[in-house]
Amino acid sequence: MADTVIVNGELTEQISVYDRGLAYGDGVFETILCRDGKLLLWERHLERLISSLVRLRIEPFEHNTLLTSMQPYLVGVGEQIVKIIVSRGNSRRGYAIPEQTRTNTIIFIANREKPKPDIMRVGVKTRICETRLAYQPKLAGLKHLNRLEQVLAQMELSDSKVQEGIMLGLQGEVIEATRHNLFLVKNGELFTPELSNCGVAGIMRTFIIEIAQQQGVEIHCEKISVKQLMQADEIFLSNSINGIWPVCELDGAPFEIGKVTCQLQDRVVELTSIA
Amino acid sequence: MADTVIVNGELTEQISVYDRGLAYGDGVFETILCRDGKLLLWERHLERLISSLVRLRIEPFEHNTLLTSMQPYLVGVGEQIVKIIVSRGNSRRGYAIPEQTRTNTIIFIANREKPKPDIMRVGVKTRICETRLAYQPKLAGLKHLNRLEQVLAQMELSDSKVQEGIMLGLQGEVIEATRHNLFLVKNGELFTPELSNCGVAGIMRTFIIEIAQQQGVEIHCEKISVKQLMQADEIFLSNSINGIWPVCELDGAPFEIGKVTCQLQDRVVELTSIA
Repeated sequence: MADTVIVNGELTEQISVYDRGLAYGDGVFETILCRDGKLLLWERHLERLISSLVRLRIEPFEHNTLLTSMQPYLVGVGEQIVKIIVSRGNSRRGYAIPEQTRTNTIIFIANREKPKPDIMRVGVKTRICETRLAYQPKLAGLKHLNRLEQVLAQMELSDSKVQEGIMLGLQGEVIEATRHNLFLVKNGELFTPELSNCGVAGIMRTFIIEIAQQQGVEIHCEKISVKQLMQADEIFLSNSINGIWPVCELDGAPFEIGKVTCQLQDRVVELTSIA
Repeated sequence: MADTVIVNGELTEQISVYDRGLAYGDGVFETILCRDGKLLLWERHLERLISSLVRLRIEPFEHNTLLTSMQPYLVGVGEQIVKIIVSRGNSRRGYAIPEQTRTNTIIFIANREKPKPDIMRVGVKTRICETRLAYQPKLAGLKHLNRLEQVLAQMELSDSKVQEGIMLGLQGEVIEATRHNLFLVKNGELFTPELSNCGVAGIMRTFIIEIAQQQGVEIHCEKISVKQLMQADEIFLSNSINGIWPVCELDGAPFEIGKVTCQLQDRVVELTSIA
């Protein structure tokens, strides 16, 4: 299904049934765009991967070999998507962590299916999902393997013409989309939800915040209500694969693709060659 | 590590890296005690497994073959622990569920390590964990594969002489222990936390509630505060492997192993042969 799968340095599509990623979701993952053989924002992804493992107190893994093991499979032309799962390793039944554990690293490399070419300009239709994100400060921000909430939210969209679902937190505040972070623009200023209770602190999200700061755009990371979102001048989504996707519709209401979104999008494309 | 592992009916310790249990924790599990070749409370476990899959909208799996595939490995003498994982199946990257998915079933069968023989009478020491359980009504009650909270809670106990950690919900109310459900006795009446926001609705928990009702013990499933817990006359833990474990200590405070706990314990042993 992917073109290449590398498990702990070896080409195989099998993993031990004792992996704690399977048993408990005890691990994290990264999804990275590779363009013409170059992993975009690689240092940032690696840095987040390592700091996420530290937060979960997962043994440091052999990240030096990560690049060398995938390098032969990153082709020089076109786009590939690289997904890296790092789990705490194998163990017997039970939550307790054995003294001797070695992380398992699984790298998936697949050619990118071309997105519809006009999606970057025309934008995507979105809807607010019923499934909410639970508050768990100990896991907030992490791209961990406990993702049943996103699976349930995605299922809500299966019959619709909507491309992405927006997820609220427990108290009804806006947090993110199922596969993207979320930004809104109001009176020329940029807003994105703070993620201390839930949500994934995306690499592209941080990158956009930095770009906005460089461009002199006022940026606010704070609690955002659905009302604020509906009254936004512009809304856009971000992740490491798609860069910036403008939102053209939310719960049936049309949104314009505005100046700030396009400026940021241009700058992201310029800096990362996402097009 | 287990004596026998059966994946989709075949003896193997490998599973596809595309399994959604690994990618997202998209599945559920059961842990069952097998004594002298007999799976205790089997019908109840199977029923919960099926209803959990329905709640997650996972395709019905071939449960008819489940018993026959494991039967040859259930020895006639002694105790074994059977763990069954059922995941939604394999898929490409992405939360969306492909139209054609077939569940993966993984059965682990291991000899039970004998617990300390007096633990049933002497009880276990417990402590309240700092890691709390997030509120997610859509997943509450399910024994799903998103168990990072339990892993974090268990890690808190790694250096202590405490055998089990007690977990609170987001608002500080008592929910369960990391590997057990929890009951308290006050003035001869039985109390156990309601689980509409979080927690696992254990098979043994329901079994004990039914036994208590048959014995004419008043039973309350409701919100329980830490204060109520600390002022309990008796506290005990329950799961399908250990039956009833009395609590002899909570956060350093001693608790007596009282009449109601022992009566229920005797009845569970009698009905299920857990000893």
